[in-house]
Amino acid sequence: MVEAGIDARIMPTARHPVVFGEVKGKSAKKTLLFYGHYDVQPPEPLEEWKSPPFAAEVRDGKIYGRGASDMKCGVMALVKGMEAYLKVHGSVPINAKYIFEGEEEIGSPSLEQFVKDNKALLKADARVAYDGTSDVSLGSKGMLQVQLTVKEDRPDFHSREAGILVSPIWRLVWALNTFKDQKEKVLIDGFYDDFKEPTPEDEALLEQLPLNPEELYSGRLLDGLDTKMKLFRRRLFSPTCNISGIISGYTGTGSKTVLPRLASARVDFRLVADQDPDDIFEKLKRHMVKQGFGDIEVTKTGQLWPSRTHPSAAVARTVMISSEMAHQHKVTVTPVHAGSGPSYIFTRNLNLPFAYTGAATTSSCNHSPNEFVRPQDYVAGIKKAAAICYNFSRFAE
Amino acid sequence: MVEAGIDARIMPTARHPVVFGEVKGKSAKKTLLFYGHYDVQPPEPLEEWKSPPFAAEVRDGKIYGRGASDMKCGVMALVKGMEAYLKVHGSVPINAKYIFEGEEEIGSPSLEQFVKDNKALLKADARVAYDGTSDVSLGSKGMLQVQLTVKEDRPDFHSREAGILVSPIWRLVWALNTFKDQKEKVLIDGFYDDFKEPTPEDEALLEQLPLNPEELYSGRLLDGLDTKMKLFRRRLFSPTCNISGIISGYTGTGSKTVLPRLASARVDFRLVADQDPDDIFEKLKRHMVKQGFGDIEVTKTGQLWPSRTHPSAAVARTVMISSEMAHQHKVTVTPVHAGSGPSYIFTRNLNLPFAYTGAATTSSCNHSPNEFVRPQDYVAGIKKAAAICYNFSRFAE
Repeated sequence: MVEAGIDARIMPTARHPVVFGEVKGKSAKKTLLFYGHYDVQPPEPLEEWKSPPFAAEVRDGKIYGRGASDMKCGVMALVKGMEAYLKVHGSVPINAKYIFEGEEEIGSPSLEQFVKDNKALLKADARVAYDGTSDVSLGSKGMLQVQLTVKEDRPDFHSREAGILVSPIWRLVWALNTFKDQKEKVLIDGFYDDFKEPTPEDEALLEQLPLNPEELYSGRLLDGLDTKMKLFRRRLFSPTCNISGIISGYTGTGSKTVLPRLASARVDFRLVADQDPDDIFEKLKRHMVKQGFGDIEVTKTGQLWPSRTHPSAAVARTVMISSEMAHQHKVTVTPVHAGSGPSYIFTRNLNLPFAYTGAATTSSCNHSPNEFVRPQDYVAGIKKAAAICYNFSRFAE
Repeated sequence: MVEAGIDARIMPTARHPVVFGEVKGKSAKKTLLFYGHYDVQPPEPLEEWKSPPFAAEVRDGKIYGRGASDMKCGVMALVKGMEAYLKVHGSVPINAKYIFEGEEEIGSPSLEQFVKDNKALLKADARVAYDGTSDVSLGSKGMLQVQLTVKEDRPDFHSREAGILVSPIWRLVWALNTFKDQKEKVLIDGFYDDFKEPTPEDEALLEQLPLNPEELYSGRLLDGLDTKMKLFRRRLFSPTCNISGIISGYTGTGSKTVLPRLASARVDFRLVADQDPDDIFEKLKRHMVKQGFGDIEVTKTGQLWPSRTHPSAAVARTVMISSEMAHQHKVTVTPVHAGSGPSYIFTRNLNLPFAYTGAATTSSCNHSPNEFVRPQDYVAGIKKAAAICYNFSRFAE
């Protein structure tokens, strides 16, 4: 950042530090805050990587590595975009601020306190989150992450005792089964109380989205998603209940007939406006007791609130036009992103409208083995970072 | 075995060899076949062992190690019992044969063929299985072991796609939930068709069993087992459906919100007379299709048939009296053991009545970390092995 001409410093938080950067524009009136994160997901399962996750191997015209897409490419594109702007023009027409956190992948637990403690430093007119692709998105889902643990106060037993002793894994299976039915409806009392249907304006944005299933959805679709509108309503405007991990008993090779003493699962709920993760967590705990699973330990491991920006906002228009300029094709604009993020922290504490975009390649195995970015998307991401500085200075006047 | 005076040899099977041994008695008319196994369960989870699983550490008056109880103690007690008998008396009053297999813990897949191929060699009047404690048991449950695998033809995805893509772990949870209800009733059509209620004679043996919950059942009991008879009926005369292992997604530390592409579980069903694992497997496969889970791969990984011996048989009386002589206390006699074993192979192919007993300590963490045997139980097991030779020569005349 310093080499690029950005005044940068490392600022501590309760856990991983924030990297803050700033470039003062020449007689600039408006300030943009660029957001990114430098942390990544764990690389496991390691055996499925075709090259080491932290070697950044270039193969078949792609750069492979953990974080290549999510989001080393975005962080570097922001830095290189500013470096290019300063080299060509000597100055930028806006004030640019940068906040790169190190806890996005674990739900940004230190970010809100950091923002509250540094309101003056972070003051801006709008925010651009660079954790995406050529697409533009104007909102994000919330999330509630929980860990369920069922533990019996005994050793693992021979499974011959399965007729008489409580089985933690059976209790976990039965409990999870009460969370969601096979039609994907969440069965927790009150889960949909604060759910808002998409507005006509949302539906209009959805209508314009290209349906690109072979690229986006290279997996088996759930039943009932046979039209574009059903698919996008479900993807963007429906909450989810996902099991991201489960383990109990013997999982090695060969055979072992054991009655395990311990079973655990991780569940993530993606939440949509106006669902509140605190509220959903309380409802989940009440659900567990009501269903007879009060003995199962439920721990909250992460939470994020949903948040949205109106499509007419200057930052929205800036990011839309800049992405088209840089990528040189029509880009899709979604009213809300399928993923979750810490945007609510900036909207709640700094009142910043925002837009998402980025330098990553669509369908690039984020969070999975063989994550990659295409160099042409990274280069377009650099151009877009520069274009955003220019366009915001025009639209935000 | 050779040092003990047993004529022994290693005989190949399709997988792990059988160790066969023989001692010809002096003008003996009757032949006993002693059964044991030299294989053990995997030692995992290694971190829960207080001493290395294969170091046989003696601590607090117990010998700790994988196989200490199941069943190195039994194999060695049989050998040492014969050695002692021969040293003291110069000969034994029966013909003794020994078969120690190496595949008991994986369901004895090569044993039946070995028995069929060696009927003359294995010819005997009865069989004693030494894979137990001071208790005597006259039957064993059957077993069906299956592996369930749910696999999507895509990589692991970011869990933001959970609203639109099929989740293998959810399908596995929903499928398992259809196997058994929370009252422990197996829901597979026809599962109980061949189930036989205990006879009045069985009930009489159950009545005599000491209820020793603090020793045997150091875990939380299932609901409804509030009397001794209910407990033993359930433990000995009910089939079970146990999940011995399950795994999917991210199970490491920290957080990873992934939509896994793969989920798998191992399920073992303990079967009682006259349930047939082949038949139950077919019923399970039909159940999966009927419940809408025909896409889940179901693989049979093991099967054993239930088998029983009448309490009035000579071998039963021999083992009961010998166990009391050796352990010097009243021993419990159960009409059937809660566990499963390959006894049906000997009853079907050689028509051998049988009884179980052994040299292990009750509640000794079989199949679990910190498996142990108490030296006094091992020594009693040696005496009992010798007593069985003597008593069978009397009872079987």
